[in-house]
Parts: sequence; structure tokens; C-alpha cells
Amino acid sequence: MHYVEIITALVVLQYLFFIYQVGRARGRYGVKAPAVTGHEGFERMYRVQMNTLELMVALVPSLLIAARFWPAEWVAAIGAVYLIGRFIYWRAYFGNPSSRGLGFGLSMLPVLVLLLMALAGAILR
Amino acid sequence: MHYVEIITALVVLQYLFFIYQVGRARGRYGVKAPAVTGHEGFERMYRVQMNTLELMVALVPSLLIAARFWPAEWVAAIGAVYLIGRFIYWRAYFGNPSSRGLGFGLSMLPVLVLLLMALAGAILR
Amino acid sequence: MHYVEIITALVVLQYLFFIYQVGRARGRYGVKAPAVTGHEGFERMYRVQMNTLELMVALVPSLLIAARFWPAEWVAAIGAVYLIGRFIYWRAYFGNPSSRGLGFGLSMLPVLVLLLMALAGAILR
Repeated sequence: MHYVEIITALVVLQYLFFIYQVGRARGRYGVKAPAVTGHEGFERMYRVQMNTLELMVALVPSLLIAARFWPAEWVAAIGAVYLIGRFIYWRAYFGNPSSRGLGFGLSMLPVLVLLLMALAGAILR
Repeated sequence: MHYVEIITALVVLQYLFFIYQVGRARGRYGVKAPAVTGHEGFERMYRVQMNTLELMVALVPSLLIAARFWPAEWVAAIGAVYLIGRFIYWRAYFGNPSSRGLGFGLSMLPVLVLLLMALAGAILR
Repeated sequence: MHYVEIITALVVLQYLFFIYQVGRARGRYGVKAPAVTGHEGFERMYRVQMNTLELMVALVPSLLIAARFWPAEWVAAIGAVYLIGRFIYWRAYFGNPSSRGLGFGLSMLPVLVLLLMALAGAILR
């Protein structure tokens, strides 16, 4: 089992799931491409996808570089917190955007921790 | 020859080509930055770039992780299908957005296949 | 010291700093989520973040692949030019968007150079 690779693949899979949800929301709420506004329900799902994209481009390099210097189990466990945080973020944002704080924190914090581990590993090891 | 690295570099090069096309469309259709709307021709090219960005962040990690577990020739060949699919997507979307189905499918399918190969490889090997 | 990993981590850190600045600009200029327009100062900072995201997805794979074929010190030095270019871009764009040329060039050029190094290395070595 290659834990870091599994978590990285699951991060990508979760993101593709959000893209699929945006597509479904287009149909359900009648928002035709290329419009990205027009119905609150669609806009919320679209924001979840975009915010996940914005965070993933920071997470994936941090995850793969941290794994060069630290035990795979630790790195993967911190990555798993991100995955859970993003699911909470999705459910919360869709219900009520102002309740997104916990999910946001639980997915941003692992990014910061992995980035510092990557930086510390690259400097000290 | 390092096939997976060549394909990954070509994926990035194709994306930079689309960015360059967006810049040209700004001039040709008179859409001044930071506006991203105002002329149909510009908006179509901009959607091609953004949709490619959204897919690339899923493709590149899948490609590099799949290559850790499977023969480079297979992984590169599937990546090449993505490249061709994106070119078809670009030509089709620019001509008539509703004809983008084939190009979209030919670039989304390789992402899903490489992601499943990455996941299966990381779990089983 | 692992120079390429350090530079890659700093690229991600700089991007997170821009995201943080966008959050601060939301508060300062009273632009409530999910709106991304409404005040010039906010829009400029948001464009800096988005443009950095668009460039990073090209830079990071180019950096990591170039490092498989060329000396880490060279690759890291070119990556450092990108970092400086992005800081100049941020300061210039925020002050006056039409003065962003130098910063843009200094961050786009290293991406092109690293991409060509990645491609040449993957083909020739």
C-alpha cells in the first residue's frame, strides 16, 4: 500500500465528484453553459468546486514534497484530514454558506501543515 | 526517451498555447483586461482555457502517480488521447460550443482511466 | 538542502499569501462572498491571485520535471526568478494594472524556460 499516492488520488477523485455535482446542478437549476450565475443552488456548488481547485493546487505539491522527507503514514493521515474537511465544507456551504468555517479550517490547516513539513524537510534533511 | 515526462510537458505547452490564444482574442475582439465578457468569440476561447485548467489539475497528478506503477508507454499513450481530445475540444467549442461533446469526452475519459490506474496501482502494488 | 523542493514550497507559500490578501481585501473593501466584483481594490487583488493560479499549474510540473534532468541549482535559480517576478507583478498590478508588464514577463519567462528544459531533457536524456 502506497498511502500518499492513495490519498493524492482520492483528493483528485473528490474534486472530479464536485465537478460532476456542478454539472448536475446546471441541469437541475436550468443554468446553461457558459453562464456561471443565475440560481443560488448552482452558484453555491460552483463556489465549492472553484474553492477546491484553488486549494488543491497548493495541497498536491505540498503532499508530494512532504512525502519525500517524512513518513508516508503521517503525510497521508494529514491529507486524510483535508479530505474530510472538504466533505464537511461541501455539505455546509451547500446548506448555508455562512456555516462553512469548520470545513474550511479543516481543509486549509492540513495544507499549511504539509507545506511547512515540505519546507522544513527540504531545508533540514 | 522519457515518454510520461514528454506528454506531461506537452500538456503544459498546450495549455500555454490556449492562454496565448486568449490574449490574442482580447486584442482581436477588443475585450480589455480585467473584463472576461463582452464578445462571444473571446468568451468561447476563455472558456476553453478555464475548462482546460480545471481538467489539468486532475490530469497531471493522475499521470505522474500512474507512471509510478504502470509501464510508461501505456500511461503516455493514454495521456496522448487527452492531448488530441483537447485539440478537438478547442476547435469544436470555438466553432459551436454545443458540438464540444466528443472533444470533452476524449479528454475527460483519459483523466478517469489514469486516476483509476493510479488508485489501483497504489493499493495493489 | 534540496533547492528545487524549497523553491516549489515557496511558490505555494507565495500563492497562499495572495489568497490571504484577497481575504483581507474582502473585509477592507466590503465585498461579501461569493461576489468577486464591486470594488476596484478588491478586483485587482483577486486578479493577482487568479493569474498566479493560472501560471502555477504550468510552473510546478515544469519545475519538477526539469529537475529530473538538470542540476537542481539551475532549476531552482530559474524558479527564484519566477518568485521575484510574481512579487513585482503583485505590487505593480495593485498600484496600476497597466504597469504589470515587467512582473508578468519575469514570471512567464521562467515558466517557458523550465518547460523547454523539461521537454528537452525528457527527449534527449
